[in-house]
Amino acid sequence: MLPHHDGSPLYVSTQAPGMGDTVSVRLRVPQAWGEVDAVRTRSNPDHEPQFTDAVIVASADGWDWWEAPIHVENPVHGYRFLISRADGRKVWVNATGLHEIETLDSEDFKLVTFPAPPTWVKDSVLYQVFPDRFARSAAADERPVPDWAIPAEWSDPVDLVAPGRSQQFYGGDLDGVREHLDHLERLGVTLIYLTPVFPGRSNHRYDASSFSVVDPLLGGDDALIRLVEAAHERGMRVIGDLTSNHCGDGHEWFRAAYGNPDAPESEFFYWLNDEHTEYVSWLGVPSLPKFNWNSAELRRRFIEGPGSVVGHWLAAPYNFDGWRIDVSNMTGRYREDDLNEEVRRTIRRTMLAVNPDTILLGESTNDASSDFQGDAWHGAMTYTNFTRPIWGWLSEPDSESSYFGLPFGTIPLYDGEQFFAAHRQFTAGFPWRTRLGTMNALDTHDTPRFLTNAKPGTVPVAFGMSVTLPGIPVVFAGDEFGLTGVDGEASRIPLPWAEENGSAADTIALYASLIGLRRAHSALNGGGMRWLHVSPEALVYVREDADESILVVAARETYDLTLPPGLVSSPGEDLAPLVGEGSLHAGGSGIRLTGSGPSFTAWRLPGVVLPAFAV
Amino acid sequence: MLPHHDGSPLYVSTQAPGMGDTVSVRLRVPQAWGEVDAVRTRSNPDHEPQFTDAVIVASADGWDWWEAPIHVENPVHGYRFLISRADGRKVWVNATGLHEIETLDSEDFKLVTFPAPPTWVKDSVLYQVFPDRFARSAAADERPVPDWAIPAEWSDPVDLVAPGRSQQFYGGDLDGVREHLDHLERLGVTLIYLTPVFPGRSNHRYDASSFSVVDPLLGGDDALIRLVEAAHERGMRVIGDLTSNHCGDGHEWFRAAYGNPDAPESEFFYWLNDEHTEYVSWLGVPSLPKFNWNSAELRRRFIEGPGSVVGHWLAAPYNFDGWRIDVSNMTGRYREDDLNEEVRRTIRRTMLAVNPDTILLGESTNDASSDFQGDAWHGAMTYTNFTRPIWGWLSEPDSESSYFGLPFGTIPLYDGEQFFAAHRQFTAGFPWRTRLGTMNALDTHDTPRFLTNAKPGTVPVAFGMSVTLPGIPVVFAGDEFGLTGVDGEASRIPLPWAEENGSAADTIALYASLIGLRRAHSALNGGGMRWLHVSPEALVYVREDADESILVVAARETYDLTLPPGLVSSPGEDLAPLVGEGSLHAGGSGIRLTGSGPSFTAWRLPGVVLPAFAV
Repeated sequence: MLPHHDGSPLYVSTQAPGMGDTVSVRLRVPQAWGEVDAVRTRSNPDHEPQFTDAVIVASADGWDWWEAPIHVENPVHGYRFLISRADGRKVWVNATGLHEIETLDSEDFKLVTFPAPPTWVKDSVLYQVFPDRFARSAAADERPVPDWAIPAEWSDPVDLVAPGRSQQFYGGDLDGVREHLDHLERLGVTLIYLTPVFPGRSNHRYDASSFSVVDPLLGGDDALIRLVEAAHERGMRVIGDLTSNHCGDGHEWFRAAYGNPDAPESEFFYWLNDEHTEYVSWLGVPSLPKFNWNSAELRRRFIEGPGSVVGHWLAAPYNFDGWRIDVSNMTGRYREDDLNEEVRRTIRRTMLAVNPDTILLGESTNDASSDFQGDAWHGAMTYTNFTRPIWGWLSEPDSESSYFGLPFGTIPLYDGEQFFAAHRQFTAGFPWRTRLGTMNALDTHDTPRFLTNAKPGTVPVAFGMSVTLPGIPVVFAGDEFGLTGVDGEASRIPLPWAEENGSAADTIALYASLIGLRRAHSALNGGGMRWLHVSPEALVYVREDADESILVVAARETYDLTLPPGLVSSPGEDLAPLVGEGSLHAGGSGIRLTGSGPSFTAWRLPGVVLPAFAV
Repeated sequence: MLPHHDGSPLYVSTQAPGMGDTVSVRLRVPQAWGEVDAVRTRSNPDHEPQFTDAVIVASADGWDWWEAPIHVENPVHGYRFLISRADGRKVWVNATGLHEIETLDSEDFKLVTFPAPPTWVKDSVLYQVFPDRFARSAAADERPVPDWAIPAEWSDPVDLVAPGRSQQFYGGDLDGVREHLDHLERLGVTLIYLTPVFPGRSNHRYDASSFSVVDPLLGGDDALIRLVEAAHERGMRVIGDLTSNHCGDGHEWFRAAYGNPDAPESEFFYWLNDEHTEYVSWLGVPSLPKFNWNSAELRRRFIEGPGSVVGHWLAAPYNFDGWRIDVSNMTGRYREDDLNEEVRRTIRRTMLAVNPDTILLGESTNDASSDFQGDAWHGAMTYTNFTRPIWGWLSEPDSESSYFGLPFGTIPLYDGEQFFAAHRQFTAGFPWRTRLGTMNALDTHDTPRFLTNAKPGTVPVAFGMSVTLPGIPVVFAGDEFGLTGVDGEASRIPLPWAEENGSAADTIALYASLIGLRRAHSALNGGGMRWLHVSPEALVYVREDADESILVVAARETYDLTLPPGLVSSPGEDLAPLVGEGSLHAGGSGIRLTGSGPSFTAWRLPGVVLPAFAV
């Protein structure tokens, strides 16, 4: 049992602090940990340490709760705790845990004064749709195949080799999505994320030729309006996908600028010759010219103000509920230029002006923390804190798998301790609110499907963790059908709708059950997060709020372990799980947890009831 | 024996890479570590991973040397290594060592394209002078005591209580410094750092009332010119101290602005009322009004261009060799404002225009890495990576000591492993060049004297590490006389010159000997840095270049340890140390090192000779 703090309402008096506010923060310290002389907070306003003293405001169940005021002096106000133990030892507590040596500023807890995310962000369950492969409406049959496309039947295998790789065209469309909202409602997802719907010259449409219209091949603007309206009627939200790093070489802005240095759009790109026929592009791919965000005109057209692309699609009649931004990590960065902060803040400012009740997610597939401090992105689409660690823990040995550009050859295997270390390391840099908005995906359209290399029986473990760890659970369309795929391309499989009530029914039911768990429990939607047990084969943690505590065991092998008394509120008896087959027996020596094979089990325990905050 | 890389010339083909250059980097891998399938570099240009392949370019003494090209794409270009072991394991190597899980961008090695520091930065040994307490010339007797001062005799005890704390005035002056250059030359220091020499209303002069003249109490401009000229004649350099965060409330700019909203200087400060009589100040101390760097006019007068304060004192006839900037961490930061990067880059740009052969150090007493990426500051005056860790390792238990604002009560004790962990953690964020420019101080005018709480016999250990770890060794004037002081104020003791050839002679000789070690060996002035052994009581490391390897044992207890064969080049026999009393015996089972009590010993071994870099 160790002292604990996180950014959740049990520990912080407000989720939306303002500049100059005094905020109360709490540290819980187990009495069994030994006598404590003093607890202080250490802030770092303007990069200079400042301390406040804590006092005990509650003692219960073997814990002392210390509370201290913090005066918020910068937009991202870092803080940590310093415990003076009676034996003279000093212990720091920060977002990576307990330390007897001084700690890094980057691992501080953080209060953030930028506008808070909509409250529904933390309650979201996201479903990712790659439109060409989700479903085809009848209208799709009537549309001519475009010149760039290689038409495919819905049951054809995915072509992994160029040109088919990006040009194989199945013809899924937005009415196809709308026609399957029943499925999404049954799953329980709340937020639909559409990969790009603007016209391009590829099946993925990340090479936009315009941001002004929805691709007619998807049904055009009207189909989008129909889809968003229908989703809203069912209480689901829908977000789009924008490429702020680049467009397609067929884009109207690029066509106007190419070979034409005098065009107003010339300054939108980085040119490598005077004729403006050579240019900087995404990873050197010529079809994806990179935007130069030094251009005020580009900002005006694309991201700044209600009339910009960013604003246009959030307003009626389209009413997107937000954006996922592609390659947000590279956006605005080239050689000496680093305009990333300006661009992301401008995007969010525009969104706040048009509709503040929207979400902004940024793709940043590796260490995302430096850009994700709460000034713009609500959360990251990243693979460092969950996706790759969960693959590492639950994949078969020697899985030869594409690993999103990392040249490993095989998936590096992690034990449970390494999963924990990686997860902690790559979430510690996020403010709590950003952790709650970050996507915990098993896979996406850019990765292999998790199931492809998974140890047998571990899908419930992996998706169970996705729905119970802080962050937004993600279903990449098709996971719930049990699809596999060895890389991002192979994973873009047309959904086998015929299996919905057949061979896929059990998997769909599993996903629905775990999403149901997430949605039914407040503690899983913003409650505190404490690790209780970490070992190579089993991970135990609890999500807590004032109403309930959800105890989770995720295991890749049979387990039999005992949590010491006081670690969580005791149910006082044997307790049936909410989901899963593990068993819990509460006795004098603590809570004994047992289960067989790979398994995911969750139980509901009493919540943590505390006195009101002083401020 | 573990794989190793650092930023030194053994491992990186240039210390001054340019944007777009291809740089070669090397990783040494011990053959005994096991078979390696591949070594790659992982860069992160524009925050997107990019890999290059390494090949073996040399094999010697049990090591394989892998080399790979890196294309420099951003001003601070981070990189790490990825080793694929034959057993399937993947190992990352970054500035914090070896890792089997993915690592943080902030711990990457770094190539920096900003203008490189003068080459003498890495060869410097710094001596810090607090002018009021260093030495009094005869001329001081002739000067009237100013109205704010409480005069003291040179032998009076330091008054720790206000008003004496800041107003007790001993009358040391710049001619006093000049008259003792023999002492500094005998010590062997190369760089004199003067705390502020501008007039103020305190003995510390961090409350400047002008930046236009040297305080007449110190002898005025002419005394400074005389001192710098005399130092230069002896091959020593001299730097000044500027307060970029604040000035004194007696400053001419502040007097013009106070209560006068229409004054041009009004915009230089942050006002809290319309009458401009209440204002933001350093930690709320009214005598130190904080600068508002949004003001273009403030920049013009203070930091921008040859005519600014920054430029003025670097040019003839003053010829300061650089600046130490006070409270650089807080400079330009207040609430939503963060102009720190703009201010520090402007300061350095001005210095480059006036005299590029100058050094710029920034005070940032805690975690400094975020501001110290090589764009401006050459090194940090910080206490996290060396000062506090060395106190922790070598102080007596229960030392009740002021700890530079940290409310510990007593000095937290570290064992050798904790020293190592803290040192590594707080240097890993620096580019190599910044590590070489960072001040490894045992103490300064703001801290207790190290000796005050030191375990008996550990001064050679501590200062021996200061002269052998990467960074600039620092002598705070008086340390070499064996002075003590329980806090920053008590440490500002007038130097007891009468003891120079008396009771202080041995300590002075010790300092001179260790400084001599530093200056005599190229490997200690920019050579690579490898840790060979870390235990609670002993630390062993080697500094290496092509000419020599300096093996160091720093121990707080008697030691007897053996380095495995191949860890360093073997001397082939028993070898006498360069300094210290430890003994080294090279045999078939490795190098046995023994020594008694607290001790510091260094030996010279053969250098590391390698083929030339490919690029």
